[in-house]
Amino acid sequence: MGQTLTEQLVSEHLVDGRMAAGEEIGIEIDQVLLQDTTGTMAWLQFEALGLDAVQTEVAAQYCDHQSFQFDFRNTDDHAYLKSVTGKFGAYFSRPGNGVCHQVHHEHFARPGETLLGSDSHTPTQGGIGMLSIGAGGLDVAAAMGGSPYYLEMPDVVNVHLTGELPEWATGKDVVLELLRRLTVKGGVGKVFEYTGPGVETLPVSERCAITNMGTELGATSSVFPTDEVTREYMEKLGRPEAFEAVAPDEDAEYDDRIEIDLSTIEPLVASPSMPDKVVPISELAGTSVEQVIVGSCTNGAYEDLKAFSETVDGQQVHEDVHAIVQPASKQASELLARDGTVAEMMAAGVNWSEATCGACCGVGHVPGSDSISVRTFNRNFEGRSGIEADDVYLTSPQVAAAAAVEGEFVDPRDYGAEHGIADPGYPEPDRFDGSDRDLVAPPETDVELRKGPNIGSVPVNDELVDAIEGDVLLRVGDDVTTDHIMPASSDILMYRSNIEKISEFTLTRIDETFPERALDANGGFVVAGENYGQGSSREHAALCPMYLGVDGVLAKSFARIHKANLINFGLLPLAFEDPDDYEALEQGHRLRLTGLREAVAGDEDVTRLTVIDETTGEEIPVTLDATGREREYLLDGGRLAHVRNSQ
Amino acid sequence: MGQTLTEQLVSEHLVDGRMAAGEEIGIEIDQVLLQDTTGTMAWLQFEALGLDAVQTEVAAQYCDHQSFQFDFRNTDDHAYLKSVTGKFGAYFSRPGNGVCHQVHHEHFARPGETLLGSDSHTPTQGGIGMLSIGAGGLDVAAAMGGSPYYLEMPDVVNVHLTGELPEWATGKDVVLELLRRLTVKGGVGKVFEYTGPGVETLPVSERCAITNMGTELGATSSVFPTDEVTREYMEKLGRPEAFEAVAPDEDAEYDDRIEIDLSTIEPLVASPSMPDKVVPISELAGTSVEQVIVGSCTNGAYEDLKAFSETVDGQQVHEDVHAIVQPASKQASELLARDGTVAEMMAAGVNWSEATCGACCGVGHVPGSDSISVRTFNRNFEGRSGIEADDVYLTSPQVAAAAAVEGEFVDPRDYGAEHGIADPGYPEPDRFDGSDRDLVAPPETDVELRKGPNIGSVPVNDELVDAIEGDVLLRVGDDVTTDHIMPASSDILMYRSNIEKISEFTLTRIDETFPERALDANGGFVVAGENYGQGSSREHAALCPMYLGVDGVLAKSFARIHKANLINFGLLPLAFEDPDDYEALEQGHRLRLTGLREAVAGDEDVTRLTVIDETTGEEIPVTLDATGREREYLLDGGRLAHVRNSQ
Repeated sequence: MGQTLTEQLVSEHLVDGRMAAGEEIGIEIDQVLLQDTTGTMAWLQFEALGLDAVQTEVAAQYCDHQSFQFDFRNTDDHAYLKSVTGKFGAYFSRPGNGVCHQVHHEHFARPGETLLGSDSHTPTQGGIGMLSIGAGGLDVAAAMGGSPYYLEMPDVVNVHLTGELPEWATGKDVVLELLRRLTVKGGVGKVFEYTGPGVETLPVSERCAITNMGTELGATSSVFPTDEVTREYMEKLGRPEAFEAVAPDEDAEYDDRIEIDLSTIEPLVASPSMPDKVVPISELAGTSVEQVIVGSCTNGAYEDLKAFSETVDGQQVHEDVHAIVQPASKQASELLARDGTVAEMMAAGVNWSEATCGACCGVGHVPGSDSISVRTFNRNFEGRSGIEADDVYLTSPQVAAAAAVEGEFVDPRDYGAEHGIADPGYPEPDRFDGSDRDLVAPPETDVELRKGPNIGSVPVNDELVDAIEGDVLLRVGDDVTTDHIMPASSDILMYRSNIEKISEFTLTRIDETFPERALDANGGFVVAGENYGQGSSREHAALCPMYLGVDGVLAKSFARIHKANLINFGLLPLAFEDPDDYEALEQGHRLRLTGLREAVAGDEDVTRLTVIDETTGEEIPVTLDATGREREYLLDGGRLAHVRNSQ
Repeated sequence: MGQTLTEQLVSEHLVDGRMAAGEEIGIEIDQVLLQDTTGTMAWLQFEALGLDAVQTEVAAQYCDHQSFQFDFRNTDDHAYLKSVTGKFGAYFSRPGNGVCHQVHHEHFARPGETLLGSDSHTPTQGGIGMLSIGAGGLDVAAAMGGSPYYLEMPDVVNVHLTGELPEWATGKDVVLELLRRLTVKGGVGKVFEYTGPGVETLPVSERCAITNMGTELGATSSVFPTDEVTREYMEKLGRPEAFEAVAPDEDAEYDDRIEIDLSTIEPLVASPSMPDKVVPISELAGTSVEQVIVGSCTNGAYEDLKAFSETVDGQQVHEDVHAIVQPASKQASELLARDGTVAEMMAAGVNWSEATCGACCGVGHVPGSDSISVRTFNRNFEGRSGIEADDVYLTSPQVAAAAAVEGEFVDPRDYGAEHGIADPGYPEPDRFDGSDRDLVAPPETDVELRKGPNIGSVPVNDELVDAIEGDVLLRVGDDVTTDHIMPASSDILMYRSNIEKISEFTLTRIDETFPERALDANGGFVVAGENYGQGSSREHAALCPMYLGVDGVLAKSFARIHKANLINFGLLPLAFEDPDDYEALEQGHRLRLTGLREAVAGDEDVTRLTVIDETTGEEIPVTLDATGREREYLLDGGRLAHVRNSQ
């Protein structure tokens, strides 16, 4: 039986496990990328590994989310990142050089290789046949240390493309069509693999818009084969040697198949406030628009900005619209400055920004109250723009351009006909030959680390002891989210490099006294109901309890990712065998667990342990459900300690 | 006796008072400008006047300080400003179009006219012979309503220029030399008037850098005569008809005279953390630099950015430096994009920003800890950059460029010699002919006001009643500052358009219960010690107590500007005749004042009144010290009410 492209890429990098859907596999990582809101903690974790240098072929750190440096803590983070990349042998992309995915694409991405990135849109590079996956900072730090990346082998879904996009339709519309059909949960545990005669009709920019926004389907990744289109594109990038032909075997078998006839795709828009609330542009025509922003890792490439400008094409931005271009890379911006596009856009009434993630992550150009913002971004979750009740629509640069000129949504086909403007297609330059002055290679000389006052160190847990005694520090109810455990509001986010400081907010939405009590107790447990730790994958929800000395969580059940995070940081996730025992374990009860090392070291999937409630004398049976790898982490005191011990 | 240029400009606009140093004069205002952190309140005040349209020849509203729209309240402020300018007949400059002084300079400034601006660097236009003065928002609102601007007739100081600037010296260095000699208090109550054979050697860009930064001397304004240089410049601006020859009479007499031989000026730098801590560049040579920012109303014009780029001239930004250009106008940026400068600067490693005040007012690119920032701005007060312990140096674009390339301070003469780079001079384009798409003229049609949830209305006081009875709401000590009365931290500043909300912070640094108690009491007094209201000129320190219903302040003495503000908003500033009476007036005492209208209407400078303490039965003599104009304001309930009544 032949292999899918995904299976080929996985098997070429497989170092652990068996490649069968649902099984845990470990794959070797060739390249990593990090951005600045996740990178500082990842590098602090890398430092804690005690290695001399990054072990991956390429590691690149980008300063893109906080490139405006609105707070000195952002600037200090960037100074730290410059020093730590220099010390350990990674590239440093200066603030203003652009968005991680676009700059990585221009300089490093290679078909056939693997990429792990501490940003959820890392799958962008699937557009040129790279197996690229987003992950948490610790996973990326471990990969930089040479460890495999572990994941469940995903299902591979074949998206079979036929036909050719009609005028004014784009790659963005293809992925919006998928979101319309499958919803934002339609890709969980899956890789979307694009095949069929339609592939060769799509330039790389459109393929990357599709793989980028595959993240909104919940997919693990998305991938295109490479072909002559890719080869020519990599020549334009000045890296012809990086090209490699990759494609699924002809007799590959997929877990599922989706058919898209590209000729049926029309310009689409995702309505507020979810990327899958997709409607044809015709349904919105005539609706007034006040803000238009073009950019982001989805549609901020040269081709996107050029398509935008060629759609504006001598018209002017409507008097009631504030139009902003935020290039995804300085190289794109430089090329467009060189060919006169930037001057023309300024003259048309467009703000031409520094290259940045900017408004896409809620930094700047927050929409006003009761106003519609049209963006070429990938997400329009409520409040993500920086104002709670926002009205954000997602679309292509072409639809955005027409709206900017007319001051209202307009079908670009009608707009083109009215103004005599032709579909710009997907205009590529002859060569992507901008300067790379802002991508700093690590120096040969020794570099001193720079750590501003907000940058702490990463605490590493001690190895698991055989007997633990501690109080129930807090008992919480069902469905406690990671937002309860570690809030993500901006006044707290700026402390993400500072575990000592940010730990002061741990569980304070439930009990303000928790952090201080936990620190004083120097050990103890959280008792929880069902689904403890649901929500985001943020590591701080485990790292901060660990810093405060918490030994473990006893819960009726755990959310999947948070349970993995608890294990990653060496906290025991123990489930009540009888959920009714939850009631008996009140705050302040003294608990004891013995024979822990032997129990955790066992080679079963599920181990039974007994918790003694010394306050009542009761014996409470609990279970530990963990893989062999996870048990090793727990014994060593977490993944960091484990990787360090393994070196 | 002949007149100085200042006296000519004043006398041509004099509508009230006598033109003698120290006397109060009222002058007619031809043009006003407003920026976005002061403009919203000024327009709310203008609305309260009840007029149909702006009365000045030109009124222009710029969105420059908050152009990044970091909070939705900024964006809402801009939406309000667009609607209110449209309704009342002012120009609206969109966010990203540039800094008020530069854009006003390009489009509106005219020799021989008067300009009042709600920004302290309004004197910039003195560089082309305009009498331009910075003022509070209410003063600007009143001027838009057709009222004169009142000020004390300043002393006129002649700065007599001879010689010609040597290579690598600039207008910035001339004003830094003045700051070195006179300090930041050297210009209080003065206008600096430039004359002599050196004037014609200075292009307009350098003259405007000098007049702009005259504000740092504490000067009321600075002014140059116009000449052939000005005429040619105004032709390049596309406004030859705006040129007018203005110059002092040959036998003009000045209050003081300063000699500057331009040929002795060398490149200078203001050291942290005051613009008058000026040293020659040679003293700093070799000191490492991490951030370089070029821009602001002082040095963000086309000529400045071009001089910067011609000093970089093919070199690259040092690897350890983050270099940012923030153009002062989009027109300058467009011209530089058109001639290839923007592309070259990007390739050299410079971030090319949207046009904005940006980092100059602490918005973005906040320096990191323990790092040196070199800026072409006008102020380096400690903390203004956004980080408390900052190290900000102020200098010319040429010195900034050399530092960006070398990664350390370097004398531009040495830098030029080493790299074979010639002094760029002050390069002007053939024509300043960028697009004006982002400068929106008021429409002919009716405009509906847009007010986001944060934009309140301006309360207007009632006319003074003849008898007041009310409690002592609070008794405070000596030297209470406007920062005590109305704090200016950023979490409070964003409510500056919302008097109802921001009033909740009134005097809370002294007594948290004050705002609620004052509102409930619906009238009453604050009792204070010496020097009440010292510090900034912020109007909210009077406007908010007025909103809360306070009738007046009884103090041992008042700070000058705050006393004027109290009168502007219709609150009685009453001074104890016997300071010992302060002790007797405890919080909660019931006070009564009668015969108020007659007493306030009196034509003495100082009026005696009696306060009855109904709690103790004591009679307490107090005095009101106010000009005739101020007494009219008090009778009507403040300046707003007075202007409205006078229409």
